Amino acid sequence: MIKDRSSKHGAPVTMKDIAKEAGVSVATVSHVVNNKPGARIGEETRQRVHEAVELLGYRTNALAKNLSSGSSRFIGLVADAIATTPFAGQIIHGAQDEAWKHGYVLLVANTDGNQAAESDAIAMMLEHQVRGILYSTWYHREIEVPDPLLQTDTVLVNCFSTGSGLPAVVPDEEQGGKTATQELIASGHQRIAFINTTTPSPALTGRLAGYRSALEDAGVAYDKSLVIPATPEQEGGYEATTAVVASGATAVFCHNDRVAMGLYDGLRVRGLDVPTDVSVVGFDNQEVIAAHLRPPLTTVALPHYELGAAGIRVLLGIDPEQDKGTYLIDCPAIRRQSV
Amino acid sequence: MIKDRSSKHGAPVTMKDIAKEAGVSVATVSHVVNNKPGARIGEETRQRVHEAVELLGYRTNALAKNLSSGSSRFIGLVADAIATTPFAGQIIHGAQDEAWKHGYVLLVANTDGNQAAESDAIAMMLEHQVRGILYSTWYHREIEVPDPLLQTDTVLVNCFSTGSGLPAVVPDEEQGGKTATQELIASGHQRIAFINTTTPSPALTGRLAGYRSALEDAGVAYDKSLVIPATPEQEGGYEATTAVVASGATAVFCHNDRVAMGLYDGLRVRGLDVPTDVSVVGFDNQEVIAAHLRPPLTTVALPHYELGAAGIRVLLGIDPEQDKGTYLIDCPAIRRQSV
Repeated sequence: MIKDRSSKHGAPVTMKDIAKEAGVSVATVSHVVNNKPGARIGEETRQRVHEAVELLGYRTNALAKNLSSGSSRFIGLVADAIATTPFAGQIIHGAQDEAWKHGYVLLVANTDGNQAAESDAIAMMLEHQVRGILYSTWYHREIEVPDPLLQTDTVLVNCFSTGSGLPAVVPDEEQGGKTATQELIASGHQRIAFINTTTPSPALTGRLAGYRSALEDAGVAYDKSLVIPATPEQEGGYEATTAVVASGATAVFCHNDRVAMGLYDGLRVRGLDVPTDVSVVGFDNQEVIAAHLRPPLTTVALPHYELGAAGIRVLLGIDPEQDKGTYLIDCPAIRRQSV
Repeated sequence: MIKDRSSKHGAPVTMKDIAKEAGVSVATVSHVVNNKPGARIGEETRQRVHEAVELLGYRTNALAKNLSSGSSRFIGLVADAIATTPFAGQIIHGAQDEAWKHGYVLLVANTDGNQAAESDAIAMMLEHQVRGILYSTWYHREIEVPDPLLQTDTVLVNCFSTGSGLPAVVPDEEQGGKTATQELIASGHQRIAFINTTTPSPALTGRLAGYRSALEDAGVAYDKSLVIPATPEQEGGYEATTAVVASGATAVFCHNDRVAMGLYDGLRVRGLDVPTDVSVVGFDNQEVIAAHLRPPLTTVALPHYELGAAGIRVLLGIDPEQDKGTYLIDCPAIRRQSV
């Protein structure tokens, strides 16, 4: 804690002030403050310098350091929608924790799909000599890479661009779909409906592939009449209930937690109980919904925190390179009481 | 769009390169690039310089500019929990949009209540000579101001600290509670229950004061047996249903949307319909819940985007000073189909 705030209202505190306060030379202050390797300075002296730094509120000039080293301690994160989804925050959180761990600060820009804002954000990050940029979308999809991103090291997070050569960190939708289905198979279900989204996306195809793969591994024949298309919201799940009940399924894998929430309501008005009559598994682990439905929903988590953290590791070259620059992040099962 | 990316892989582009490309002097390039006032340079020449800048991918050195001016184009935002709430993202979003509008970039740090991380984050922001810092919490509460924040201009967002002298931008809980209750009164209800939180907070006291104020304005006597305490989650709302039904209330103001979601389930198992039998109003406008319940929930919005945006305006001295440095932000009614 800095007690004296002379640095705010008076003249800036200099190394000379620190040296005077600590009773050492300016060179010694410089060595201690800049943590120079090899400088032979006793522990007690270091302590005195640190105390003087705290007392006077001296700050090293990070900008001057950036200038002399030619790059900064910033990493940029450009996201297309922070406000419209509870997920984006977790990508930021993961990226930031990991960035801090390696001595970097995250510069975040939200663009809401506005191309001018996006260009401005990227230009500003480049001006500030960022170490690199994470470019992230709020749902997993293919993107066109904005030109200016090619001027620095860029990692795509929760999105990808075929042929761009840029590394992409994305959720493993197929593994996630397989995991969800296996949760139901493991409880003895064989007639398992899948309420899938109608929105063309890696989630639509990947989760379906995972569903089929799990059935195949269990020796259950694929019956395409059990795949019920629905808009990926509560309303879609509610409307799909008729088809689910007509199919004779004893269990349902829902494209996401919101669909499961709608299905819960649809089953309830028909007097059907979860999980006694029908078992339900969701996808996303949207905490505010999944953990608080009646009964709490078993689901598969979208690993947003991990996507952000892995993005930083890939950017800094910490994670070993994976297949063609695509880094698949596991979607783990979250067990509650709906199976 | 920058077509030639020589700046990435070759030597950095200099003003000399720009001058050569544009067929002008280095001094002219400097004047145009730095937008020097008073420099008499023709529009056509400026245009040529800008084209050369775009072609060669030249970037002014923002760090050098910061150094010479002694302050940066950064504003810091320190938040205590980005990951655990869908709300924090909207504070960031609002702050960022407003910061950009005034030529600033937002530096975001998430601390998760970790004091060491918080100190580090603030120190780093100070090192980078931020214009000031917004300090924000994910729910509205009183805080102890971390000492280092006093070294720069600080605005508290969604929190406050009595006696600190720091300006605070907070939601107007009382007005919000009054608005929620008035929505029910306007539909002809007089016996209105209020499921309030059990967590001591400005939300608990403020919304209760607003509820009482609306009743008083309408000439309805306050009956404290109609105020039902509950944990502020779905489970609390579900459990409160018994007391709500026993009270004979025809309408319920719920402390938040999650409580309303639990109450919906509780009413449904008792065969009661919303809004035919009981009208319900929530609080928060947590989109993913409120807009998608059956029926969609009428609620009062917590103005997170506006909190972030107003925080920036207060920091930059754009908003006129309000009463004792406390800026109350309106919580508007969002009408759907539960009343």
